[in-house]
Amino acid sequence: MQAEALAVLSEAHPGAVSTSQEDLAMYSQDQGPVVETVSPVAVVRPRSVDEVQAVLRWATAHRVSIVTRGAGSGLSGGANATPGSVILSLERLNRIISVDPDDETAVVEPGVVNADLNAAVAEYGLMYAPDPASYRWSTIGGNVATNAGGLRCAKYGVTRDSVLALEVVLADGTLITTGHRTFKGVAGYDLTALMTGSEGTLGVVVGITVRLRYLPRDIRTLAAYFDDFPQAAAGVLAIGRARVQPAILELLDGRTLEALDGAHGSDLRSHGGSLLLVQTDGFGAAAEAQAIRDVLVGLGAQVSDEGSEEADRLVDLRRHSRGDAVEDVYRVGEDVAVPKSQLVHYVAALETMAARHGVHLKVVAHAGDGNLHPTFWVQRSDGPQAEERLEQALDESVRSALALGGTITGEHGVGQYKRRWLGWEQAVEVLDLQRRIKQVFDPLDILNPGKAIVS
Amino acid sequence: MQAEALAVLSEAHPGAVSTSQEDLAMYSQDQGPVVETVSPVAVVRPRSVDEVQAVLRWATAHRVSIVTRGAGSGLSGGANATPGSVILSLERLNRIISVDPDDETAVVEPGVVNADLNAAVAEYGLMYAPDPASYRWSTIGGNVATNAGGLRCAKYGVTRDSVLALEVVLADGTLITTGHRTFKGVAGYDLTALMTGSEGTLGVVVGITVRLRYLPRDIRTLAAYFDDFPQAAAGVLAIGRARVQPAILELLDGRTLEALDGAHGSDLRSHGGSLLLVQTDGFGAAAEAQAIRDVLVGLGAQVSDEGSEEADRLVDLRRHSRGDAVEDVYRVGEDVAVPKSQLVHYVAALETMAARHGVHLKVVAHAGDGNLHPTFWVQRSDGPQAEERLEQALDESVRSALALGGTITGEHGVGQYKRRWLGWEQAVEVLDLQRRIKQVFDPLDILNPGKAIVS
Repeated sequence: MQAEALAVLSEAHPGAVSTSQEDLAMYSQDQGPVVETVSPVAVVRPRSVDEVQAVLRWATAHRVSIVTRGAGSGLSGGANATPGSVILSLERLNRIISVDPDDETAVVEPGVVNADLNAAVAEYGLMYAPDPASYRWSTIGGNVATNAGGLRCAKYGVTRDSVLALEVVLADGTLITTGHRTFKGVAGYDLTALMTGSEGTLGVVVGITVRLRYLPRDIRTLAAYFDDFPQAAAGVLAIGRARVQPAILELLDGRTLEALDGAHGSDLRSHGGSLLLVQTDGFGAAAEAQAIRDVLVGLGAQVSDEGSEEADRLVDLRRHSRGDAVEDVYRVGEDVAVPKSQLVHYVAALETMAARHGVHLKVVAHAGDGNLHPTFWVQRSDGPQAEERLEQALDESVRSALALGGTITGEHGVGQYKRRWLGWEQAVEVLDLQRRIKQVFDPLDILNPGKAIVS
Repeated sequence: MQAEALAVLSEAHPGAVSTSQEDLAMYSQDQGPVVETVSPVAVVRPRSVDEVQAVLRWATAHRVSIVTRGAGSGLSGGANATPGSVILSLERLNRIISVDPDDETAVVEPGVVNADLNAAVAEYGLMYAPDPASYRWSTIGGNVATNAGGLRCAKYGVTRDSVLALEVVLADGTLITTGHRTFKGVAGYDLTALMTGSEGTLGVVVGITVRLRYLPRDIRTLAAYFDDFPQAAAGVLAIGRARVQPAILELLDGRTLEALDGAHGSDLRSHGGSLLLVQTDGFGAAAEAQAIRDVLVGLGAQVSDEGSEEADRLVDLRRHSRGDAVEDVYRVGEDVAVPKSQLVHYVAALETMAARHGVHLKVVAHAGDGNLHPTFWVQRSDGPQAEERLEQALDESVRSALALGGTITGEHGVGQYKRRWLGWEQAVEVLDLQRRIKQVFDPLDILNPGKAIVS
C-alpha cells in the first residue's frame, strides 16, 4: 500500500488513524493461535458510522484489506492482521442507542461490551442471553462476527438467536439494514443470519438490534462429582432423558479439576474425578434442580447441598478460568462439538490419542449442547518435535469429532486458524458456494481476506 | 417447453410424472392469493433423492422452471404454478429417517407432515416445536421453505431455530449438506439459515435434521376476556412487564369472536370484546399461570377458572379455525408483525382504515411476538370497486405496519403475493444482494422464479 493512500486516510480522519508501533503491535492479533505474525499497516478507530463508511470507500478505492476488530478476544485468529491490512477497531462505537423494555429489544453499536449491555438492561428485568466466557470484555459486534456461544446456549440459544436486525457497511461503503425489529419476520433471504458468524468477511456490522430475554426469577445451581468422566457424561444423558432443560450444564474432567486446584488452591479433584455443574433458572428452577438432583444421586454422584454457595462459586470459576499463561508451555484450546450421545466416546478417543502422541490433555464441555473445549499442551522445552506431536493430536482430534458426526467449531469460529480443517467438514461444492457468496458482498476481496472460508 | 423434453422426463421416471388435467389443476395453486391463474405443464412426484437430482439435471438441461411443493398449505402463493413450470411435489419423500432421543434430534424427508413427526417423537418425551396452524397437514419441507412460525414461537422460536442441517439439491442436481448435526456449529457461512425461508428459490431441500425440544411436564391455559382490544393489548404488555414468558399468547378481537360464534354456535362475544388466550408450559407452568392471572385480573379481565377445560378448547378453536370459505366474499388474510408495544396502535390504525375504505376487518395476533393476522373482506356482490377498496386497505395496512417499525410478513413468507410490498420494506441495495445470491445458487433462474425476492 502506498504511503500516500495512508496519508489521505489520516488527513481525512484526524485522530482516528494510528501507525504507532505500539498500536500496530497491540492490534495485530487476537487471542487465537497465530498462523503468521504480521503487523498491520495502520489502526483506524472510527467515531461514527459515517467514518466507517468513509474508511470502506477509501479501502475500496485503494484496494486495502480491512480487518474489523471488536475487543480482540476471539480465539480463532479472526482478527489477526494479514499482510498489508488495516485494522478497523470499532471500540469507539460503543453507545447503547436504545433499550425498549416493552418491545424487549435494544439497539447497540458494535463496540458495546456484552456485560455493559447486560448491566444496562438488568434494571428492566431483562438480559442479553448469549454469554461467552469473554462477556466482561468482548463486544456485541465481535459476538455477532463469530456467532458467539457461551454457557447458557443450551436453553437460550447462540448469538444468532438473539439478533433481530443489523446495520452493515458493505465493502464499497454502502450502509444497509438487514432483518427486522420484530421477533418474527421472513421477508426475503435471511441476510442477518448470513452476516452473523461471517467474521467480518461480508461487511462491517455497525448497528445491532438484539432481542432481550427475561431475567430469571430464580436460579438454582448444583455441583455433582462423579468418579470419572464416563460417569459424568452418563449424567448428562440422564438429565436429558429426564427431559429437564438446564440453563447451564458444564462438564469438567479430572485434569481440569487438578488445574483449577493448582491455580486457585482448591481441592476439587479430591471430591471426584469429574464434575458436572448444573444451573436451572426461571419459575421452574427449584423443581428442575430437584429433578436433576434425583437423577444424579441415583447415578451415584456426590451432589452439593441445596442452596450451597459452593456450586455458584464453581460456576463462576468455570466461567472465568482461562488457565494461566505458562511460559514454557505450548497450548492450544479446541472447540469441536459432537452430538450429545457421543460426548463419552469422543473424550475416550481424545485420551487415547493424547497418550499416543505424548501430549497433555484436559477437557471441559458445554455438555448441554455437546460443545467441547479440549486443551492440548506440550512443554516447549521438549523441542519442535513436541509441537509437531501436538499438531498431529489436534488434527486427529478434529478428524475424530467429524467421524462422530461433529463439527470443527462449536462457537469460536473458523477465523484464520481453523481454515485447514474446514475442507474436512464441508464438501467442495459447499466451500465453493461460500466463496461465491463472498464475491457477491466483497468482489475485491478486501474484507478480512484469508479468514472464515476457504478462498 | 418442448413436448419432447417432457417425454424424456416421463420415460426416465415412470409413474412419477403426471400431465393429467386433474393433477395439473390440483397442483397449480397453494392456499395463498393467486396473482395469475396458471397451469403447470406437469407434476412430478419423485420417490427418492436420486430422482429429485435427476429431475433438476433435466430441468437445467431443458431450462424448465421448477416449483417445489410440500402440502400446498402455503398462504403467500409460494407454490403457485408459473408459466411453463413443472411442479415438483415432495409428498412421496415422507420417511422419518431417524429419531435420536439422546441427541434430541431427528432426520426427516421433506414430505413428512409436521404432526406425524410430533407423534413419532412424543413417545420419547420430545416434540418438534414449530407449530404452524397447518401442522396437521403441512410438511416439514414446506415449513423450512417458509421458515414457518406458529403459536409457540414466542417461547420456542420459529422453524429456523429448530433446523440444524439440510440436504439440498442444487439447481444443477448437485446434492449438498449444510449445517451440522450438533446443536451448535459455526463452520463457514450459515447456509442452513439462508436456505430456510428461501421458498424453493435457492435449492430443493430433500433432508432435514431438526432439533427436538422436551415435551412440557405441565401445561396451564388461561382465557381472559377484556372489554375491548386496547385493554387486551395492554394485558399483553403487562404480562411482558411481569417478565413471564408464555408458550402461547393469542389475541382475538371482538369480530373474530363473533365469527367464531357464528361458525361454532358459541357465545364468546357475550363474555367480552376481546380475548387473550395464554398457555404456559414446563416445570414452572403453574406458577407462571398464577403470575399471569394476577396481572390480568388486576387489569379487570374476566379470567377462566384454574383447570377449566374451556380455555384449552378455545386454544384448539383458535388453532384450527381458518374461517369458512364463503362464496360471496372476497377475503385476504394478512401476516404483518410489529414491535409488541405497537400492537394497540396498529389495530387502532387498522380499524380506522377499514372504516374509511368500507371493508370488513377482524384481527387475531400471535401477540407474544407482535405477529398479526388481520383479515379484510368485502362482498363480491358489491362489484369490482369493492375489491379495489380492499386492495387499497391492504396496501395501507402494510404501509402502516412498516411505519410502526414492522415487517410485511411475520411467518407466511413473501411467496408470489407479497412481492409488491417487499421493496417498501427493503432498500434497493438489499434487494440487489438477494438477487445476486439467487444468481449464485440458480444462475439459470429455474428455481421457483418470480417468488420470494424481487428479481
